[in-house]
Amino acid sequence: MADLPTLLRNLNTTMRADDNWGTPANYIPELAGINPAQFAITVITADGAVYSAGDCDTRFSVQSITKVFTLAIALGRSGDQLWSRVGREPSGSAFNSIVQLEREQGRPRNPFINAGAIVTTDEVLAGRAPRDALAEIVQFIRTAAGSEDIHINEAVAASETQHGHRNFALAHFLASFDSLKNPPDMTLGTYFHHCALEMTTTQLAQSGRFLMGAANMPKLISTARVRRLNALMLTCGHYDGSGDFAYRVGIPGKSGVGGGILAIVPGKASIAVWSPGLNRYGNSHKGTEALATLARQMNWSIF
Amino acid sequence: MADLPTLLRNLNTTMRADDNWGTPANYIPELAGINPAQFAITVITADGAVYSAGDCDTRFSVQSITKVFTLAIALGRSGDQLWSRVGREPSGSAFNSIVQLEREQGRPRNPFINAGAIVTTDEVLAGRAPRDALAEIVQFIRTAAGSEDIHINEAVAASETQHGHRNFALAHFLASFDSLKNPPDMTLGTYFHHCALEMTTTQLAQSGRFLMGAANMPKLISTARVRRLNALMLTCGHYDGSGDFAYRVGIPGKSGVGGGILAIVPGKASIAVWSPGLNRYGNSHKGTEALATLARQMNWSIF
Amino acid sequence: MADLPTLLRNLNTTMRADDNWGTPANYIPELAGINPAQFAITVITADGAVYSAGDCDTRFSVQSITKVFTLAIALGRSGDQLWSRVGREPSGSAFNSIVQLEREQGRPRNPFINAGAIVTTDEVLAGRAPRDALAEIVQFIRTAAGSEDIHINEAVAASETQHGHRNFALAHFLASFDSLKNPPDMTLGTYFHHCALEMTTTQLAQSGRFLMGAANMPKLISTARVRRLNALMLTCGHYDGSGDFAYRVGIPGKSGVGGGILAIVPGKASIAVWSPGLNRYGNSHKGTEALATLARQMNWSIF
Amino acid sequence: MADLPTLLRNLNTTMRADDNWGTPANYIPELAGINPAQFAITVITADGAVYSAGDCDTRFSVQSITKVFTLAIALGRSGDQLWSRVGREPSGSAFNSIVQLEREQGRPRNPFINAGAIVTTDEVLAGRAPRDALAEIVQFIRTAAGSEDIHINEAVAASETQHGHRNFALAHFLASFDSLKNPPDMTLGTYFHHCALEMTTTQLAQSGRFLMGAANMPKLISTARVRRLNALMLTCGHYDGSGDFAYRVGIPGKSGVGGGILAIVPGKASIAVWSPGLNRYGNSHKGTEALATLARQMNWSIF
Repeated sequence: MADLPTLLRNLNTTMRADDNWGTPANYIPELAGINPAQFAITVITADGAVYSAGDCDTRFSVQSITKVFTLAIALGRSGDQLWSRVGREPSGSAFNSIVQLEREQGRPRNPFINAGAIVTTDEVLAGRAPRDALAEIVQFIRTAAGSEDIHINEAVAASETQHGHRNFALAHFLASFDSLKNPPDMTLGTYFHHCALEMTTTQLAQSGRFLMGAANMPKLISTARVRRLNALMLTCGHYDGSGDFAYRVGIPGKSGVGGGILAIVPGKASIAVWSPGLNRYGNSHKGTEALATLARQMNWSIF
Repeated sequence: MADLPTLLRNLNTTMRADDNWGTPANYIPELAGINPAQFAITVITADGAVYSAGDCDTRFSVQSITKVFTLAIALGRSGDQLWSRVGREPSGSAFNSIVQLEREQGRPRNPFINAGAIVTTDEVLAGRAPRDALAEIVQFIRTAAGSEDIHINEAVAASETQHGHRNFALAHFLASFDSLKNPPDMTLGTYFHHCALEMTTTQLAQSGRFLMGAANMPKLISTARVRRLNALMLTCGHYDGSGDFAYRVGIPGKSGVGGGILAIVPGKASIAVWSPGLNRYGNSHKGTEALATLARQMNWSIF
Repeated sequence: MADLPTLLRNLNTTMRADDNWGTPANYIPELAGINPAQFAITVITADGAVYSAGDCDTRFSVQSITKVFTLAIALGRSGDQLWSRVGREPSGSAFNSIVQLEREQGRPRNPFINAGAIVTTDEVLAGRAPRDALAEIVQFIRTAAGSEDIHINEAVAASETQHGHRNFALAHFLASFDSLKNPPDMTLGTYFHHCALEMTTTQLAQSGRFLMGAANMPKLISTARVRRLNALMLTCGHYDGSGDFAYRVGIPGKSGVGGGILAIVPGKASIAVWSPGLNRYGNSHKGTEALATLARQMNWSIF
Repeated sequence: MADLPTLLRNLNTTMRADDNWGTPANYIPELAGINPAQFAITVITADGAVYSAGDCDTRFSVQSITKVFTLAIALGRSGDQLWSRVGREPSGSAFNSIVQLEREQGRPRNPFINAGAIVTTDEVLAGRAPRDALAEIVQFIRTAAGSEDIHINEAVAASETQHGHRNFALAHFLASFDSLKNPPDMTLGTYFHHCALEMTTTQLAQSGRFLMGAANMPKLISTARVRRLNALMLTCGHYDGSGDFAYRVGIPGKSGVGGGILAIVPGKASIAVWSPGLNRYGNSHKGTEALATLARQMNWSIF
């Protein structure tokens, strides 16, 4: 194996040397105000070793990355029945597009676009009070990460509630097709809150260990399901940039508009990277570049 | 002129002889429960004479027909500036489609589809309390109809608020493009309430007299604007069945899902027809048939 | 009646005084090379009087305006059966859009968008040799115009055949849904040729007299059908600018990318206007402005 | 390693025991007439060993599977410049959809949907005579397969030319955006011919060996490019069923409407499977099932 600590140190240096940081998400003030010139990466290998570089102790809003965990929980609760409510195909359109939803009568294309994640959140909610569903989601992530010090940023959740008109539109649109089991406002409240979770790259990489499917790693779901989550992350994990990410990086991953990406090298590594500036697909610009470089240097492409 | 009272009497008989009444709107219980086997028509000619047949004293929910009045008010308040917020083209899709709204970045195609009427309602609301905007709308219609006995059915408005997920989706979608000036819930509240107005065909035909543009009729807006409202009713007044209505009936009209249609013969007549069963475009089935027959018999096509 | 000769003379002066001529169609060299600073108008009133101003003896490519005549012929041959192959609704999209055709499985929205006109041409072709169908179309138009001196510009037809990839795409797309009865190349050949007819505004206004539905005018089709053609021209005659034309001008009309417009004032006048520069909808810029002015001055709006 | 010969023998037996063979492609007579009750599989492992079961000596029309080879050739000729003409994202719609092409102005989403493969064929054609481009394509495949006995079925190519209206529509649509460098008919002729290549599963599996990226396998393109082709096959290789295939099977593959699938286990195996009946996505029904079973039994998922 190449010298991972050196690679990460060099990666951190290289990333910071380039002035093009991309643009942070600007749809809520809490995310728009962030300093884009930040970068962090943490890699955990199959033997449990943890390697980090950059701002790896800074907490950031994980946003859509939680869709991986809520999907794992929803599949655990409902099994393959979940797939009657949401598909498994790349969407071919932007993460918040509503067009597909009209054409396909309220069944979102996959659980990683917003509409699909609202449906999986609705499945997890299951008639409970939002705080109970949130407790389950947070506990799942804390267990995965092996850390109790993971929390929801209430200001971010409140701001999403206030400014998230597109998500309200998606939820009500789903409801108009009877695609939600809970009142849209309750499902959305749960959704906004789990998206507002904050983690460091160290915590996020820890929380992804169970997706390595490796012998000594935490086993939260079956190996078959681990593989399927990875497959979904590869085909749908980066919105309408998923094909490009697969082509250039070649490993499963899930991005969030907070600038984080959780990437998995099956059997070998769990990687968390963070840099708040986004590329035109809405995925972390430097995060994507760093993963492309690292995957090439480590020969980690699954292809 | 043909013998209008006899024509209307025969029309009423013919319409009731045919068992195919269409299907009432079923998206809210208040409309779904109605007996479809009802029919009413009122014609007011340019000399002010009123001719009716059928259930012309039964009140029904005028629904989208109020979009004509709110448009007249919005144009009165804002003039042609309104057209920066909403277009004047037929939509080429269903009345509640959201696809066009995504493609055209939050600018509805015309003021008679739901999204467009939400925007004109938002223009009328103009930062006021909903009850003040509603007072203006109701007063405009009462003045047009020459009757104070026109009221909002609060149960219908409440039911729309509870079940109108598609309209909530449209409003939040508009808000996500900054296409609303007021909070979506306030604009929608105003919208649901003016759609819940109830009238008889007699009242509705009276309220449409100003659109005849005739000498002795009430003059609420300029003649130029009357013509333009009629043009919009002809091209966009029956959702995605507007072309068919123009082809078969040949006069401007605006339908509502309550089964009413207000139709105008420029210079000659204001017609209100009502039958709650709808055709596949969401327009009154018998109402459309009756207007086609009447326009042919009276030689009222504008073409 | 206002003094029509004076109005037209002034209109011609006004139009030429403004430097904004719009942009001629540029998809084939034969149309792109034209001098945009040209304007002609001819009005024929119900008494048969002919009034012209500007370049009324200059021949221009009538292009899509022939769709009105092929539709009249197709309806004459097949009656209402034609409507199983093509709709009567405004398209809500550009004249050459293929999206609607996929969504609605090969049935064009109306006979005035390209796909719809290809279908009506296919109906007129009816298994014959293209030259026989063309002979019928040209003869219909010559009879309507009362002039044998109307001809197809073969160079324009050939250029369309060479450059008309979008129309080839539409024809083959229709064929893939079994929506054409003749081989696509034969239907398209016929289509390109009738679109390449050339007329002066005088000839074009003459050819539209039968659409006035007036007593002393040539009667080529039934009065009921005249009305329906006018209705279609009003709702669909200016592509995705039809609503705007109805709103601003208020009379039925059909435009062509050659810069011509044929407009009808039912019972009163047939108008041909020409100026080769187009507006953003692909309709003659000055032609539309001139018709708006004239309709207002003559009080000719049908609304 | 599990006992591959036994697994394949059992797989062959299991597949034949189930009567649900799916439906062969029916858009051309040459494919529609085939007996669906056929099944073949060939696996070649990284040591070069060849294992087969079923009708592995029957030639079938490989159809879209050749898109992998033409893409490899196009990338070899033009490098990353190719990506200015075609994207790398899953399409989110059917293999022959034209909607995306209008929305994205003539740039197909990926090289494995029809429009994209027409563009890569156009790139390979590069101004040459079709037979010269075809010679290069056929030679590439023969070299990859290590067999000169691979030929084009001229009857199938001719039938595609006669019935392939959808592909003509796509090609002319591309041409209307200036997205083709060669005349549409020449590009399409080349496209129809390479799709009409016939192979046995043995030949097809041989031809895919270079995509294993394994040490002792033929090396026709760089390792980096092998990985990228595999990534594209995983995200886009099964049209709008790609996500499902990735989820259920978990290895890169490319299907053809002739019922063949070429699947690659990076570093480990090249697999060809064939059964002419298709599932609802247009991919081989039994072929997909067989690969799902085999990948699970052999633990070959890349996730």
